[in-house]
Amino acid sequence: MYKINENYLKLPGSYLFSMIGKKVNEYSKAHPEQEIIRLGIGDVTQPLAPVVIEALHKAVDEMGKVETFHGYAPELGYEFLRQAIVENDYKKRGVNIEVNEIFVSDGAKSDSGNIGDIFDIDNKIAVCDPVYPVYVDSNAMSGRTGSYDSETEKWSEVIYMPCTEETGFAPELPKEEPDIIYLCFPNNPTGSTINKTELQKWVDYALKVGAVIIYDAAYEAYISEEDIPHSIFECEGAKACAIELRSFSKNAGFTGTRLGFTVIPKELKCNGVSLHSLWARRHGTKFNGVPYIVQRAGEAVYSEEGKKQTKEQIAYYMNNAKVIREGLKKAGYSVSGGINAPYIWLKTPNNMTSWQFFDYLLENANVVGTPGSGFGPSGEGYFRLTSFGSYENTVKAMERIQKL
Amino acid sequence: MYKINENYLKLPGSYLFSMIGKKVNEYSKAHPEQEIIRLGIGDVTQPLAPVVIEALHKAVDEMGKVETFHGYAPELGYEFLRQAIVENDYKKRGVNIEVNEIFVSDGAKSDSGNIGDIFDIDNKIAVCDPVYPVYVDSNAMSGRTGSYDSETEKWSEVIYMPCTEETGFAPELPKEEPDIIYLCFPNNPTGSTINKTELQKWVDYALKVGAVIIYDAAYEAYISEEDIPHSIFECEGAKACAIELRSFSKNAGFTGTRLGFTVIPKELKCNGVSLHSLWARRHGTKFNGVPYIVQRAGEAVYSEEGKKQTKEQIAYYMNNAKVIREGLKKAGYSVSGGINAPYIWLKTPNNMTSWQFFDYLLENANVVGTPGSGFGPSGEGYFRLTSFGSYENTVKAMERIQKL
Repeated sequence: MYKINENYLKLPGSYLFSMIGKKVNEYSKAHPEQEIIRLGIGDVTQPLAPVVIEALHKAVDEMGKVETFHGYAPELGYEFLRQAIVENDYKKRGVNIEVNEIFVSDGAKSDSGNIGDIFDIDNKIAVCDPVYPVYVDSNAMSGRTGSYDSETEKWSEVIYMPCTEETGFAPELPKEEPDIIYLCFPNNPTGSTINKTELQKWVDYALKVGAVIIYDAAYEAYISEEDIPHSIFECEGAKACAIELRSFSKNAGFTGTRLGFTVIPKELKCNGVSLHSLWARRHGTKFNGVPYIVQRAGEAVYSEEGKKQTKEQIAYYMNNAKVIREGLKKAGYSVSGGINAPYIWLKTPNNMTSWQFFDYLLENANVVGTPGSGFGPSGEGYFRLTSFGSYENTVKAMERIQKL
Repeated sequence: MYKINENYLKLPGSYLFSMIGKKVNEYSKAHPEQEIIRLGIGDVTQPLAPVVIEALHKAVDEMGKVETFHGYAPELGYEFLRQAIVENDYKKRGVNIEVNEIFVSDGAKSDSGNIGDIFDIDNKIAVCDPVYPVYVDSNAMSGRTGSYDSETEKWSEVIYMPCTEETGFAPELPKEEPDIIYLCFPNNPTGSTINKTELQKWVDYALKVGAVIIYDAAYEAYISEEDIPHSIFECEGAKACAIELRSFSKNAGFTGTRLGFTVIPKELKCNGVSLHSLWARRHGTKFNGVPYIVQRAGEAVYSEEGKKQTKEQIAYYMNNAKVIREGLKKAGYSVSGGINAPYIWLKTPNNMTSWQFFDYLLENANVVGTPGSGFGPSGEGYFRLTSFGSYENTVKAMERIQKL
């Protein structure tokens, strides 16, 4: 008799956003006259940039003619896209990454979920708390996290690094030595960042203890301040200890178009074995590339027009972020994030739990956000709002919150 | 110090098609005047159907306007596509599959590589020999296949089911009881099929021994004969023991557009645990959906025009298959496949090994095929040609082979 992967059964209940959806649906049914504003999920709302649309149409036409049709893509992605990535995301920032160190993928969620495949089960992971759920869940699925305690909401074999007001919403170097460290800056969900000096400390630490850093830089396009690194490879020595995940979802609105990439430097080695070769094998065996038309769309993001147009989209969202930050401050909330990230992280008032505040906001302002506790135990007492709505709705939401 | 997944190091050398590419490049460099015809890799060459191109353009336009923009897709895929699949691929064949038993994905390669995630490491797999390499390699990566013997080219913990001339290129029920059985019909690489009575035997066997069947039906659109099942769910009891993988790559030329789906019936349970719920969790955690525009393209395949146009493409390739079959027979080769599948499987002449015949064909006819031994030890002495080239090249290749 065949056996299932029992690790799946250890995973706690339903996914955060399913629970939010359920609550909103119920409220909506009971109060059909109320107009609900959703600042909860991190999905973009602005359409694809004109230059991206143009590139898509052109590539679609190519797919319709025998002379220009494209079948299976090269396993690591088309050279035209990887070249544009190397030039714009790395070379222009003084970082030397080779074209064949880039693995084009269908997005950072797949990559962050699948990257664990190339590591032994017997590795201890360290994560920020609160954290994007995929890092922990995907490790739990492969049996790397021990057992789950529903009281503490923690896995027995995971090192949690609290990111709270006390730590300035940044993790401190863990006391127990981890093998794999997940870092995400600018951070989801807190919207916080660390500067280059601080990130260098993590690189130095990883090199010292023999850990590998999985660095999720999906929100780097939202960085507005100087001295905040856009890539971990800006730090010295990072190529020997880090993997970087990137996404087109938030910098170019590709959440429904699906494109991302992973950078694994060739000098990243574990006892002489190149992690690049392991990921290449995984990529070549369990994945068959990203649609040609989507890779052309990605290339267009890096054109002069593309950079200008996507910058405008980001400015639009960051103006929303400003509206939320200032609106909440005016209403007396304690707020962080929203300066180098599209997320605003606020402290719930009057010692409400995250879910109490969720209900309070839904019922009294008809505004949907995300309970901080959904991202981990140290998120309790916090709440996330996103700047991905329309400007009009964002302004309206703040007006309602200020009236509470 | 972190540790890598050592199972990756057990995998034998480079991928079959990399080796072919290398040999062809070397020959090409040495003989730049020769025109090489590639009938090796299973990649399509005909452009996307006009109705698919039209659907893509329309969907691209939607992505460019705020009112019709699409962000994250529903986790299991858009209802419009899943509905079309249920109606056309199942209901019309008298098979009752529910919309929410369909998981839309970026292709059957990803699905066949990832499906192992939901099973325990301690399961014994059975595969046809020869076989599509992804089934075995992905299981080897997760540590399910024991050790590799480069002499016999076999893994110690895999049950191989020889498919040779002696067995009519179909597998026989294995003597040792497997937990997970991989079947692919119409078959890659042999091009063989089994009829419904024969497939029913496999379903009955799986139910009897408590095995689960991973049924790869990527080539079902090429079936031309009656009584060959298009889906394993045409067999009685299959919903309690089978998962079906489907692809748009070969039925609609989506190799470079990426679309497929997996069917997991809700009644498929292991000790009371629904495999559907496990795969839903995997899908929701490590995958973020297929591009909206590609799902619209998939929907168009099921329109009346779409069905007509893709049928013409398949007829084009199947005419090539006929040219190859008859051409080879005329030249005295022993040939199978090519009637319900785009692959022709031939016995190498004069007791040549598969690679000897590869070199012989490349050097003397400038035709590239795939050595049967690359698909497993029982493929030794066989050779695969595909019908995915142009008609002109296919005819030319046969003329050259007949002159040998």
